[in-house]
Amino acid sequence: MNPDLNQAVNTQLQHIRIVMVNTTLPANIGSALRAMKTMGLSKLVLVAPKTYPHPDIDALAAGATDLIEQIEIVETLEEAIQDCHMVFGTSARSRTIPWPILDVRPAAQQSLKAVQAKQEVAIVFGREDRGLTNEELALANYHLTIPVNSEYGVLNVAQAIQVVCYELRMAALEIAPQSQDTDITDQHAMPLNNGQHMQWDEPVVTQAQMQQFYPHFEQMLVDIEFLDPENPRLLPLRIKRLFGRMQLDRMEYHLLRGVFSRVQALSKGTWQKTNLDHKESSDA
Amino acid sequence: MNPDLNQAVNTQLQHIRIVMVNTTLPANIGSALRAMKTMGLSKLVLVAPKTYPHPDIDALAAGATDLIEQIEIVETLEEAIQDCHMVFGTSARSRTIPWPILDVRPAAQQSLKAVQAKQEVAIVFGREDRGLTNEELALANYHLTIPVNSEYGVLNVAQAIQVVCYELRMAALEIAPQSQDTDITDQHAMPLNNGQHMQWDEPVVTQAQMQQFYPHFEQMLVDIEFLDPENPRLLPLRIKRLFGRMQLDRMEYHLLRGVFSRVQALSKGTWQKTNLDHKESSDA
Repeated sequence: MNPDLNQAVNTQLQHIRIVMVNTTLPANIGSALRAMKTMGLSKLVLVAPKTYPHPDIDALAAGATDLIEQIEIVETLEEAIQDCHMVFGTSARSRTIPWPILDVRPAAQQSLKAVQAKQEVAIVFGREDRGLTNEELALANYHLTIPVNSEYGVLNVAQAIQVVCYELRMAALEIAPQSQDTDITDQHAMPLNNGQHMQWDEPVVTQAQMQQFYPHFEQMLVDIEFLDPENPRLLPLRIKRLFGRMQLDRMEYHLLRGVFSRVQALSKGTWQKTNLDHKESSDA
Repeated sequence: MNPDLNQAVNTQLQHIRIVMVNTTLPANIGSALRAMKTMGLSKLVLVAPKTYPHPDIDALAAGATDLIEQIEIVETLEEAIQDCHMVFGTSARSRTIPWPILDVRPAAQQSLKAVQAKQEVAIVFGREDRGLTNEELALANYHLTIPVNSEYGVLNVAQAIQVVCYELRMAALEIAPQSQDTDITDQHAMPLNNGQHMQWDEPVVTQAQMQQFYPHFEQMLVDIEFLDPENPRLLPLRIKRLFGRMQLDRMEYHLLRGVFSRVQALSKGTWQKTNLDHKESSDA
């Protein structure tokens, strides 16, 4: 392959991180690193790994030692994805409520479009035995699945990472030639329902910002007694699903948070309506 | 997945065998079996394996024991492929003379076309350390490559088999009769950013409903003096753009309109908080 093209593809893939949550077997981390490096990815984030470091990681990652040095270890999934704009949670099972689900191929294509729009992407993989929890999956914009034999759907985590990294490279190769000459510096892109992106006036917010958005929305709903914190039922999940699907831009984000704050102030009596009084007096 | 479709796909894949030549590590055979079964393939042929049988094979092939029983052991590659119509030899290196080379995706598509034409197909994988010999590669109709990072192209044989089997399944799914009309009665579809639809638990609302949603949202913003009706600026437009971008489902729609109504009642004093008073009195 043309070394420039190879380099261009690998550079794009730097913006897509693989996140492994609570991994038990060091061999799976080593295999993941090898799968990543083979396909040109470089950033692995481990969320509270059970065993780390371990010689099996180095053994299985044969030759991918530069990636080992770049591994990032964090305590929570929130930390792992805080600066990401688009997060995919991998899931084999169906969940309480349907979440936007993409097969790995369109998910990879969407990831590369996000990278072209200067976004950071995370693909999150769960525990060997039981995957990601519902709470972890609710942190994702989309769920990602790999089409498997439904009579035997037990792809292990290293195999799943191999397939995902392969599709990411294929997606990067597909768009590579075009990306060489489009200069999208200082511009933003918004994914649309028809699969297209368009130039946007405002950047898309990060997951760290959304982690402040959701509690704010929920607290506002509690303040107006729309949400019972003792018995929230599916309401918080539905809100995460709705706004995760939408990907808010910065202006929309601040607009909505401004509305929440105003409603909270109103409900606490710390803010009083002015215009109404004014109008009533002027009517009189 | 629809069980009939799954079965139809697996039936096609029965006509594509994986052939491993002179494999040294039993773990690679076990991983290959697992990769195969996950993707719906069932026929593995081992050409003069170095170590067979071995407990590592069973350990790695967890749950794919039916495939172990079907393994065929032969002495030469010629025997392994004698009844095949189309043979792919996997190769990372370029060879003495140019051979027709296909990337794994078109190779998988071509394999499935061959199966539809009642042909038998073999995909041949070489030794862990040095792949297939020139003589072995010369037995193939085509060489198959997997696009990898050219700075680190060391996919191991189990990973390569995983990627190949995944592409074979994807190709089989692509050509599977579209007529397997999935019964979506009483189900709903949600359009996604990539242009696909997914099954959803609630129907998407109509534009007619949204024409009631926007004025409601705006009136609520006026009521809390967040929006000045005399000088709305871009706010109403941004709200339409935001909620128009991602279609609301019925539950989300009613949830948000319920919030608007509650906020309006609060702002007009027609609704009073209860729990707070209740709590305060019970605290006292």
